[in-house]
Amino acid sequence: MTTASDTTQEEIVSAALIVIGDEILSGRTKDKNIAYIADHLARIGIRLSEVRIVPDDEDRIVAAVNALRSAYTYVFTTGGIGPTHDDITADSLAKAFAVPIDIDERAVAIMKPHYESRGLELNDARLRMARIPKGADLVNNPVSHTPGFMLENVIVMAGIPGIMQVMLDAVTPRLKKGRPMLSVTIVVERPESDVSSALRQTQESYPDVPMGSYPYVKDGRFGTQLVLRSTDEGVLADAAEALRARLHAEGLI
Amino acid sequence: MTTASDTTQEEIVSAALIVIGDEILSGRTKDKNIAYIADHLARIGIRLSEVRIVPDDEDRIVAAVNALRSAYTYVFTTGGIGPTHDDITADSLAKAFAVPIDIDERAVAIMKPHYESRGLELNDARLRMARIPKGADLVNNPVSHTPGFMLENVIVMAGIPGIMQVMLDAVTPRLKKGRPMLSVTIVVERPESDVSSALRQTQESYPDVPMGSYPYVKDGRFGTQLVLRSTDEGVLADAAEALRARLHAEGLI
Repeated sequence: MTTASDTTQEEIVSAALIVIGDEILSGRTKDKNIAYIADHLARIGIRLSEVRIVPDDEDRIVAAVNALRSAYTYVFTTGGIGPTHDDITADSLAKAFAVPIDIDERAVAIMKPHYESRGLELNDARLRMARIPKGADLVNNPVSHTPGFMLENVIVMAGIPGIMQVMLDAVTPRLKKGRPMLSVTIVVERPESDVSSALRQTQESYPDVPMGSYPYVKDGRFGTQLVLRSTDEGVLADAAEALRARLHAEGLI
Repeated sequence: MTTASDTTQEEIVSAALIVIGDEILSGRTKDKNIAYIADHLARIGIRLSEVRIVPDDEDRIVAAVNALRSAYTYVFTTGGIGPTHDDITADSLAKAFAVPIDIDERAVAIMKPHYESRGLELNDARLRMARIPKGADLVNNPVSHTPGFMLENVIVMAGIPGIMQVMLDAVTPRLKKGRPMLSVTIVVERPESDVSSALRQTQESYPDVPMGSYPYVKDGRFGTQLVLRSTDEGVLADAAEALRARLHAEGLI
């Protein structure tokens, strides 16, 4: 039998995500990484607690990294590690951590054979992608072979979704993980304001099980999805049963 | 003839967006509002400079609102204004501005006839949606009739995209606007690292025209979109022409 104290004693592994890119803020590009990373982290028991989208501006990147890396177990970044002048994430990370940055021979050793096999020279622009802050571990990129990196608790990944995803897979075994977040969804074919009383009362009985309500409209009729979340399967089942009983007693399901 | 000084003297109207909701951070719900708001603001000449996604937590909402409302012309929020216990945006705003909050008779007057016409009573849960911080102006919601509000420079909107969008339309005439951001896109069928030198050199000649490069893969071949942005049509055309000339001279287009 699991008790509430088991849940509260458990260490929470938390994370923030910094999305770097003028193109997201200008509306030119739709971000596709936030939802993917949120879902991936939830499945491995890391709680995404904050996301910031910031422009390609060194001061803004440094400020976001330094504000978040002390507040959460991990900080992930996407974007700004390509070969062009606006790709300033690696240099911004070096500045945030006050460490030197230079072309990293480990990165060159990975990149060189792949460029050579395509008949391409490792020119200055490509070598720019091998700039890695001192002390960082590389994060493998089997798609385009220019690595991401992990500097202390900050994981720096590409912005292109297909490359970000393989980097996230590559770094996942190195991360500390909590218990995965579990959820139960109860669908009620009533507007949100009809179910809010039952939901609030059940929430008061189970303060450690966050309960959210998400209204929807289907075929012109209002409905509500009630979502209960916990890392503890037993507590979650008890809370869901209590909510169902209350909704039933009120004639809502 | 437009000169660089015309551009730099122009007042920049800036904005931040706070997306409020556990469901976005948990991966349960994909945000659909960021891209829409980014695009809308760009078209009316307001520069979206930062986005934060925060959980349904009063302290976190208050901290984000207070950090951003002094830094930008406007702050927009989405989410957390429904009828349930986790809808705490209005109360968090009142706390951030240190003003009282209560059921607002203007909001009740708008909501009442719509609920009555559907045979629904204005119960406690629904009245919760009429809680508006003192001093706020209402923002009309012709879809579901529960208003958003604008408190000083902070605009509070619903999280459901269809409702957020009509609130954004309703508040737009009240906003100060800058000159709309214009852009030119040049597509080069070469990998990003081939074009970075031409792009960097052109950027140095036109420091006021932000230039971004966005790699893509199509039919297995690497290409790059180069995007130049400015509020000044003449400067933008000059910069684009300079970039095209340089790409042509290097045999890239």
